[in-house]
Amino acid sequence: MGDEAAAAGRRILVAVDEGDESVQALRWCLGTFAAAARGDTIILLYVRPAPPTYSVLDASGYLFAEEVTAAIDRYSREVADAVVEKAQKLCTLYSKEVGEGGHEMKVEVKVAVGDARAVICHMADKLGADVLVMGSHGYGFLKRALLGSVSDYCLKNASCPVVIVKS
Amino acid sequence: MGDEAAAAGRRILVAVDEGDESVQALRWCLGTFAAAARGDTIILLYVRPAPPTYSVLDASGYLFAEEVTAAIDRYSREVADAVVEKAQKLCTLYSKEVGEGGHEMKVEVKVAVGDARAVICHMADKLGADVLVMGSHGYGFLKRALLGSVSDYCLKNASCPVVIVKS
Repeated sequence: MGDEAAAAGRRILVAVDEGDESVQALRWCLGTFAAAARGDTIILLYVRPAPPTYSVLDASGYLFAEEVTAAIDRYSREVADAVVEKAQKLCTLYSKEVGEGGHEMKVEVKVAVGDARAVICHMADKLGADVLVMGSHGYGFLKRALLGSVSDYCLKNASCPVVIVKS
Repeated sequence: MGDEAAAAGRRILVAVDEGDESVQALRWCLGTFAAAARGDTIILLYVRPAPPTYSVLDASGYLFAEEVTAAIDRYSREVADAVVEKAQKLCTLYSKEVGEGGHEMKVEVKVAVGDARAVICHMADKLGADVLVMGSHGYGFLKRALLGSVSDYCLKNASCPVVIVKS
């Protein structure tokens, strides 16, 4: 963070998920914050939940843990692909619309696995993010209900400034 | 908020107070976020507490409400002046350092009176801020202990995206 980082373009980490608020956050980032002409890099980060390691019982009590975990894992990968593709399209769209004299926004994609809250904070550090941008809830209704707000956690624990965008 | 706002320069509301974190927030804003060349305007907002309306008793039980409230009010104005002056100096310093081809950062100053949490959210709306930048605590140890975190409140209630900068 600081003047050198600004001069070399800022590294803007955007946490994306399947929710509308993360799309709003990315839109805000592209429309109001990031500037291709300034050499900024947008890093799209999607965090997949870790595959379940416990066994799963169906109604008859029959174990089919491997099949189920493989299916869950496959589904989770598909969701990740869909979210990241949508986010990348939005980046391309804005790059074309805004133009900025032929500058194209640098976009990187990271898909990580684990607890979204911890992974986002860790990646912000590891990737040398100048700022973390995210929706105000983040990571879907169910996980929010189970784990509390991801954005609250990141606000407290991320080592860089955090932008919270509400829809 | 949006492309029009970005094209015309962004209106960046920075909530300043007597704490170090608000200085950090302003530094981050000047060094990493705001760009004079883009036509951005920084609006420095300081919120003074409303003067007490209750009567004050000294040890002997003698009422000297007016004198005391006048003294508190005078002190509060002095603090406001000092904070705003320091913030403005920082803006000037960065404008000179960064230069950006003769572009000077537009800086506006607003001093308001009332409950910091409500006033900041209200002013963000009223001043058409594209983004609100503030420290993670905001508004001093005592008020935080009494009222809870100003930044938490603004995160929930401000109608624009909020950047939280930690020291």
